[in-house]
Amino acid sequence: MMEVEDAVAEEFPLTIYLNDVEFATLVCSPEHLEELVIGFLASEGAIKRFSDIESMNLDDHGGFCHIRLNREIPTDHFIYSKRILGSCCGKSRQFYFQNDVDTAKVSMAKTTLTPAQCIELMRGMQERSTIFKETGGIHNASLGTSDSVIAHRGDIGRHNALDKLYGHCLQNRISVRDKVLVFSGRISSEVLTKAAKIGVGIVLSKSAPTNLAIQLAEDLNITAVGFVRGDSFNIYSHPWRIKKDSSL
Amino acid sequence: MMEVEDAVAEEFPLTIYLNDVEFATLVCSPEHLEELVIGFLASEGAIKRFSDIESMNLDDHGGFCHIRLNREIPTDHFIYSKRILGSCCGKSRQFYFQNDVDTAKVSMAKTTLTPAQCIELMRGMQERSTIFKETGGIHNASLGTSDSVIAHRGDIGRHNALDKLYGHCLQNRISVRDKVLVFSGRISSEVLTKAAKIGVGIVLSKSAPTNLAIQLAEDLNITAVGFVRGDSFNIYSHPWRIKKDSSL
Repeated sequence: MMEVEDAVAEEFPLTIYLNDVEFATLVCSPEHLEELVIGFLASEGAIKRFSDIESMNLDDHGGFCHIRLNREIPTDHFIYSKRILGSCCGKSRQFYFQNDVDTAKVSMAKTTLTPAQCIELMRGMQERSTIFKETGGIHNASLGTSDSVIAHRGDIGRHNALDKLYGHCLQNRISVRDKVLVFSGRISSEVLTKAAKIGVGIVLSKSAPTNLAIQLAEDLNITAVGFVRGDSFNIYSHPWRIKKDSSL
Repeated sequence: MMEVEDAVAEEFPLTIYLNDVEFATLVCSPEHLEELVIGFLASEGAIKRFSDIESMNLDDHGGFCHIRLNREIPTDHFIYSKRILGSCCGKSRQFYFQNDVDTAKVSMAKTTLTPAQCIELMRGMQERSTIFKETGGIHNASLGTSDSVIAHRGDIGRHNALDKLYGHCLQNRISVRDKVLVFSGRISSEVLTKAAKIGVGIVLSKSAPTNLAIQLAEDLNITAVGFVRGDSFNIYSHPWRIKKDSSL
């Protein structure tokens, strides 16, 4: 036996205070922390747009972020946040019973893709992923137009990667309705719910969706495309967004 | 394009009621649900042993489990369960500040392994994993003696796989102190914390631990062994448990 150095993924705890009240601690990869906080707050329904934030003080050494909002936080927000665990910080049963429609919207996106564009977007996502070191499980997510990837984020937490993309769009006022989400991992119910919160109409993945994710995709009018590998893929819901001729 | 059938992983929502109060909803793979509930309750500190449960009614069709305990649930239990998200349902910052020592114990395990036993246990875990269909991301966990795997569980949620093993041990009064945990994925802070709650002294993984997991392993006296691949591995903490001659 000998002592060796090797690549260790960093888990960084980031505690968010909202109007001086401790709101949440995220364990994340320590990049794009502002975007993460913005995306997380929007995803949780605490903000609707970037301008809801009056001030933001990030201590990226200590792992603290103090947020002041322009408005009061509804006190019942903390009641919403009951003890709920998912397969990977997943969603509660309540969602399946349609009580979470406040943030997870039925998609109104009309953008369509050709099969060639699906394959090209997956290739683009995978190309960007290689810049993240392979330290054993970084989740990668890209946002693309129908033609190419415009933003890419990685994180040890799958929901963090998605929240970073969401925060990026909010911070830079990037419209998402005509965008496509490309994800490195399985489309779980949580990933699908995030996609609905972000507002995209199409989710592409290398892997399969779960049964619940397919059901949610049906309900939320999202096109879930899985097993995008080489030149083929499977469409699990709302196949009308994938068509030979995208000149809609 | 043609319509095809393919393997879709199942996400099953299971809502747990504790003395008639809704406690949590887990999203999981729908096998070994009793073990999952038992392991989860122990992991959350709601029970200490299997006999704390007076009755358990599992509706594995509807996804409900009603548990009655022999004792009152401390009302402050729900205060503990603040809104906390990890990289994958990870632990809160509080833990790093040592407020969770109630359930995550410093390991007193004395069991040691030879390098050959480490490699053999990983082989055993991987052999058992193949019975779980490759539908894109089942987490696999085995519990072994120094000689062989004695139990194996898989789940779409990494913490669920570990809770199932924990529940299995509690339900069958299997002592864990002399056992080894073998995990298919990265050793995150959450996985390490679960290992401490279960009570094992050694965790083996195919992947690397995170920086926080290594720190926790140091603090909790757990031997974290990563990158167990082929004939080699790396030891990240408390290397005294891995020795050429295991005849302690």
